[in-house]
Amino acid sequence: MDILLGGRRTARRAYGIDEIALVPGARTVDPQLTETTWTLGGISREIPILASAMDSVVDVQQAIRLSQLGAIGVLNLQGVQTRYAEPEAVLTEIASVSRDEYVTLMQRLYRAPVQPELVQARIRQIKAAGGIAAVSATPQDAAYLGPLAAAAGADLFFVQATVISTDHLAPQGVTPLDLARFIQEMPIPVIVGNCVTYDIALDLMRTGAAALLVGIGPGAACTSRGVLGIGIPQVTSVADCAAARDDYLAETGCYVPVVADGGIITGGDLCKSIASGADAVMIGSPLARAEGAPGQGFHWGMATPSPVLPRGTRIKVGTTGTLEEILRGPARYDDGTHNLLGALKTCMGTLGAKDLRQMQQVEIVVAPSLLTEGKVYQKAQQLGMGKS
Amino acid sequence: MDILLGGRRTARRAYGIDEIALVPGARTVDPQLTETTWTLGGISREIPILASAMDSVVDVQQAIRLSQLGAIGVLNLQGVQTRYAEPEAVLTEIASVSRDEYVTLMQRLYRAPVQPELVQARIRQIKAAGGIAAVSATPQDAAYLGPLAAAAGADLFFVQATVISTDHLAPQGVTPLDLARFIQEMPIPVIVGNCVTYDIALDLMRTGAAALLVGIGPGAACTSRGVLGIGIPQVTSVADCAAARDDYLAETGCYVPVVADGGIITGGDLCKSIASGADAVMIGSPLARAEGAPGQGFHWGMATPSPVLPRGTRIKVGTTGTLEEILRGPARYDDGTHNLLGALKTCMGTLGAKDLRQMQQVEIVVAPSLLTEGKVYQKAQQLGMGKS
Amino acid sequence: MDILLGGRRTARRAYGIDEIALVPGARTVDPQLTETTWTLGGISREIPILASAMDSVVDVQQAIRLSQLGAIGVLNLQGVQTRYAEPEAVLTEIASVSRDEYVTLMQRLYRAPVQPELVQARIRQIKAAGGIAAVSATPQDAAYLGPLAAAAGADLFFVQATVISTDHLAPQGVTPLDLARFIQEMPIPVIVGNCVTYDIALDLMRTGAAALLVGIGPGAACTSRGVLGIGIPQVTSVADCAAARDDYLAETGCYVPVVADGGIITGGDLCKSIASGADAVMIGSPLARAEGAPGQGFHWGMATPSPVLPRGTRIKVGTTGTLEEILRGPARYDDGTHNLLGALKTCMGTLGAKDLRQMQQVEIVVAPSLLTEGKVYQKAQQLGMGKS
Amino acid sequence: MDILLGGRRTARRAYGIDEIALVPGARTVDPQLTETTWTLGGISREIPILASAMDSVVDVQQAIRLSQLGAIGVLNLQGVQTRYAEPEAVLTEIASVSRDEYVTLMQRLYRAPVQPELVQARIRQIKAAGGIAAVSATPQDAAYLGPLAAAAGADLFFVQATVISTDHLAPQGVTPLDLARFIQEMPIPVIVGNCVTYDIALDLMRTGAAALLVGIGPGAACTSRGVLGIGIPQVTSVADCAAARDDYLAETGCYVPVVADGGIITGGDLCKSIASGADAVMIGSPLARAEGAPGQGFHWGMATPSPVLPRGTRIKVGTTGTLEEILRGPARYDDGTHNLLGALKTCMGTLGAKDLRQMQQVEIVVAPSLLTEGKVYQKAQQLGMGKS
Repeated sequence: MDILLGGRRTARRAYGIDEIALVPGARTVDPQLTETTWTLGGISREIPILASAMDSVVDVQQAIRLSQLGAIGVLNLQGVQTRYAEPEAVLTEIASVSRDEYVTLMQRLYRAPVQPELVQARIRQIKAAGGIAAVSATPQDAAYLGPLAAAAGADLFFVQATVISTDHLAPQGVTPLDLARFIQEMPIPVIVGNCVTYDIALDLMRTGAAALLVGIGPGAACTSRGVLGIGIPQVTSVADCAAARDDYLAETGCYVPVVADGGIITGGDLCKSIASGADAVMIGSPLARAEGAPGQGFHWGMATPSPVLPRGTRIKVGTTGTLEEILRGPARYDDGTHNLLGALKTCMGTLGAKDLRQMQQVEIVVAPSLLTEGKVYQKAQQLGMGKS
Repeated sequence: MDILLGGRRTARRAYGIDEIALVPGARTVDPQLTETTWTLGGISREIPILASAMDSVVDVQQAIRLSQLGAIGVLNLQGVQTRYAEPEAVLTEIASVSRDEYVTLMQRLYRAPVQPELVQARIRQIKAAGGIAAVSATPQDAAYLGPLAAAAGADLFFVQATVISTDHLAPQGVTPLDLARFIQEMPIPVIVGNCVTYDIALDLMRTGAAALLVGIGPGAACTSRGVLGIGIPQVTSVADCAAARDDYLAETGCYVPVVADGGIITGGDLCKSIASGADAVMIGSPLARAEGAPGQGFHWGMATPSPVLPRGTRIKVGTTGTLEEILRGPARYDDGTHNLLGALKTCMGTLGAKDLRQMQQVEIVVAPSLLTEGKVYQKAQQLGMGKS
Repeated sequence: MDILLGGRRTARRAYGIDEIALVPGARTVDPQLTETTWTLGGISREIPILASAMDSVVDVQQAIRLSQLGAIGVLNLQGVQTRYAEPEAVLTEIASVSRDEYVTLMQRLYRAPVQPELVQARIRQIKAAGGIAAVSATPQDAAYLGPLAAAAGADLFFVQATVISTDHLAPQGVTPLDLARFIQEMPIPVIVGNCVTYDIALDLMRTGAAALLVGIGPGAACTSRGVLGIGIPQVTSVADCAAARDDYLAETGCYVPVVADGGIITGGDLCKSIASGADAVMIGSPLARAEGAPGQGFHWGMATPSPVLPRGTRIKVGTTGTLEEILRGPARYDDGTHNLLGALKTCMGTLGAKDLRQMQQVEIVVAPSLLTEGKVYQKAQQLGMGKS
Repeated sequence: MDILLGGRRTARRAYGIDEIALVPGARTVDPQLTETTWTLGGISREIPILASAMDSVVDVQQAIRLSQLGAIGVLNLQGVQTRYAEPEAVLTEIASVSRDEYVTLMQRLYRAPVQPELVQARIRQIKAAGGIAAVSATPQDAAYLGPLAAAAGADLFFVQATVISTDHLAPQGVTPLDLARFIQEMPIPVIVGNCVTYDIALDLMRTGAAALLVGIGPGAACTSRGVLGIGIPQVTSVADCAAARDDYLAETGCYVPVVADGGIITGGDLCKSIASGADAVMIGSPLARAEGAPGQGFHWGMATPSPVLPRGTRIKVGTTGTLEEILRGPARYDDGTHNLLGALKTCMGTLGAKDLRQMQQVEIVVAPSLLTEGKVYQKAQQLGMGKS
């Protein structure tokens, strides 16, 4: 299957979410009969959606609301919520500056230190309201923030970097995080990411991770591919890591969910991610558009504030409806951005999949959107038609 | 032929109408000598075009006019024509609201109940004027509307859903439509759809269907691929279902026409659909542009009014000519949207195909338009040229 | 090499001019030492370019000027030049109407009859000024216009249709042109076209044609692919017909030049056409941009005025320089539209090709421009750069 | 692996930098521990970047500054710096004219003769400030300018043409440059280019070249592909020439660095070029955006002033930061155009590559950007999102 690039250099073709489409089979099922429930670290949820640990998406209020609606919101422990006692003013400032200013502004704002008492306060606020407290930190700070979060009552702990590895070469004097040991010692389930390949996924499962986040590069606010050249289209990475999950299950009897993270904007993207093998998805920009989202109509990557090499971007996403409309409907828009659960259930029904496991097996075709729907719209435009 | 997406997940490459082009052969035929007639449920027509059962395309007057011109118009029995005694005002309201309002408006307007007496009245109006009364309903309501329509004198009955199946799992207490039994009991021919694969096409033919509608996702006003991730490019689905038709013919001696439905905008699209194996096409947006079209310059998908998950869209198509100019010419535009019959006959003559059966066998090349005509226009634009 | 489209339908992948690029070899040659001369019907020319038989490109003056510059201009015997004694006013009218009016206007203007005395007068005017009188007619009128043209002193006669065939099925009472007999009886060389495949190219060579025009669909002012779905990317059709030419040469000792016709806009397109196997190219839009071009800054396909099915379009091309600057330089623009001969000679020198025969053998890579130069410009734009 | 274009014409598929992405492996390395140093003609540099020998990019001051920052700037010995004693006014004029005027203006300005005393003065100015004096000339003038430059104290001499060859056929009376002899006789290392294929790369290494420049066509200010049809996507040409380098090393023990030249705009492009096999890159437009760049916010190809066939273009690039910010950061932008060294080190760390040799071996996937990040942005736009 290898492609010869030149010389002795070969490569594999990887596929993205916009290159595939799902194909109906012999059976259809009434959407009411479909079952979308999944389990993460012992917590069962009706909606297989995690809200990204991004400052524009999740704060205490949204985490609570997401829990109530059947999903999970992950709070970034190294963002404005734990650096500032009153983060609203900071968020308003980010939303108000021009395109030329936000990188510099964020570099400055994120220089304020993370305050351990705020870390614990945010977790307690979520728990006090009956929410699921899922929180996230980078590998560099996990050893410090992990126990702090657990002590405050966190339910789930995410260790998340652009690329996570079990074999990190650190400068002298610095001890890299020993993932397996960290997970063993943490009193709550630990989810790790991001990874994109079979081998690393298997390695990470062996550390005892409760789930894996899969995806590098495709996020709407992520510029890793432009800045670093790194990235792999989601269908291929999800399918590879899902194969690792299934092999690990066969080997150990443990089922470690695979969460597709990045590049998912519509209900169709969600459905295709599950069909590629994911158990759930992590989404940012679709939820940054909710009323009450901390980003106030903007969305940005958590690598944007990097002092020397920012590699996220800020995008204007607007506000289109309530969190409930986006997650459970009824939809006020016809473009797939509202009622994500309804879209998943309708898709599963249409394809005859009764549960997520069956949905992971539906037929897929490679069908470049550019050459089907895209062209039709393009044609439509050429012919003087236009979205009204 | 399978593509490895990742892990153990494979997919087939499917082809769309914009990816192919037709190739001349050894013979040419004068267009006057070409024969485009086809037969649907015993009714013979010169033009192999059905007007979609969409509220922006077909009402009583257009159904009559389409019959007179040699085509067939299909009336939606669950649209504004059967919910409102005076549908014009409703249509004018849809055409007058802004982009942000139409989804909500339609959700409200389509909540009015379908009135059985209007169902029968519309059919009788078409028949009274000598038109062919072809009418359409969803599988959920076919058992009720089918007999009603037949009693009023309908000629053809369409059972149409995004995806139709012969094995539908319904909630307890609900009896799904038994297609085979319904077709057997209906006194008039029943056309069913939509389907996209060989196996389902064969299944549906065995129910006794008079014809199949083929296509999911590609329609101009359809957002199924965005909302649900479901869709399959038309060339592949038509060729697959045409193979099922030919095998069913060999097996049973019955010829069940295959109608390509969705994504067909120009004469070239029509020609390529037939060349892919279709016996006829069903089109919406090209006819929504006719003088007298009920959409008044707008076109929308019949899933747009869905109360919880709208997945069609409203597009502004304008009004470009009479139904006669669009179907039979003379063309006033050079972009392939007028004189569809003339385009088909000229194409058949140029390719040496004397009838539709020969047209289904002409040579095809895969030739991404993006890289030929598209690029030329793009280049032209770069070089300061522009359509005048 | 066949691609399975679906069912039992297969297709070949065809390649367009924008999908390839030329690769340098082991040798370079000073451009002065390259030889671009070719011979058409016994007439030797330095520039392997024919100006298309289109009303926006060639009139008597331009035919004379093209001859003087080392090329050939082909006069359309069924255009405004032979329908009107004073065509300038007609051309000005075409150039002055709006986009919505030109189809209807042209349908009216081209209804005026072709006048035999004007046919002969135009040819005599070209000859009187020492020009090469190359003229063109459709197969329907060739039997009538051919002898008339030859009698007036024409040097070359072109029989040109969208698709030409040696086996045409005509309505009763109409005698189709017997190409072989026509060519045998004509006292001057006859060039025929257009064709796109190996078999037809071979058939046409056996009729005694002096050269073949190759290409259906790709022209800048051609909408055949949109209207009829017919077309084949140029690299594949030229390479196929060039193989037929070489086989016919091996079989008979006769060399029948292959002229790539359509879609050629820049020097790079010209070079790639020759590299694909062509002996020369026929171009329209690049010469419609010359000072003195009859189109007055506009360009249109000769199928545009069709009374029932127009399938060309009118594009605004502007006027960018003299015919000499466009053909022989010096170039005033850096985009490849000026100094086509210089571009060809520089390309041949860079690739080490001393003559056109060697140029037909240079190495080619498939290299979608979209993914190389196109993307760079796109990137440049994203990054705030722009053509200045 | 060959693709059949048509007839007997075959071609190879070549891949561009936008078609690939890099894949993380089993290990990560702290960016501080990565080593980016490379050696060119005995000169060791921390940053594997050469500034192109283009008038908009390198003058004496920028050459000095690039040396100080750990890179190398190549001065064009046949540009405005050696034609004019006071080049600033000339550069200001180029930056001030409109798009329709610059080709003609440059054709005039570059007609002024190269002055030998200015050639030597510029080199001495660079050396006097402690800079590395790397200078460039075309093969036509290398025999004359090479010794002149060496005598003035130049450190490195570049012989650069669009396409270089060891077998050039010159007009009678003209002696082509004997590359091997020239290199042998030059007292300083000679770098040659550009080339794109394995065989020519090997030929050029055998002449004694100190390094090769690889790339034809992809530059932001280069229109070779449009004007001449010549070009080859960078990944394939770099991988081919890198294989020649490795084979030459195995054969002779000499390591001749391969420098990817053209089309590199972002940090991601730099990383992907090294991953394709390059030892370093040559960049123009990214450095034309630096404060103090001679182009004053504009960038143009050195073939733009060609008197008869200009085939570069002028693009407006603006000024986005200091040379230090662009090369070493901290970055003020999040799009990959600032802190190129930081991007390379972060990428190497993320991929687990400790040095450039390991970076040349990282895993690559073919992943059309159009279908991943590109589509996401496109989608974002469709959904009313936009870069803020």
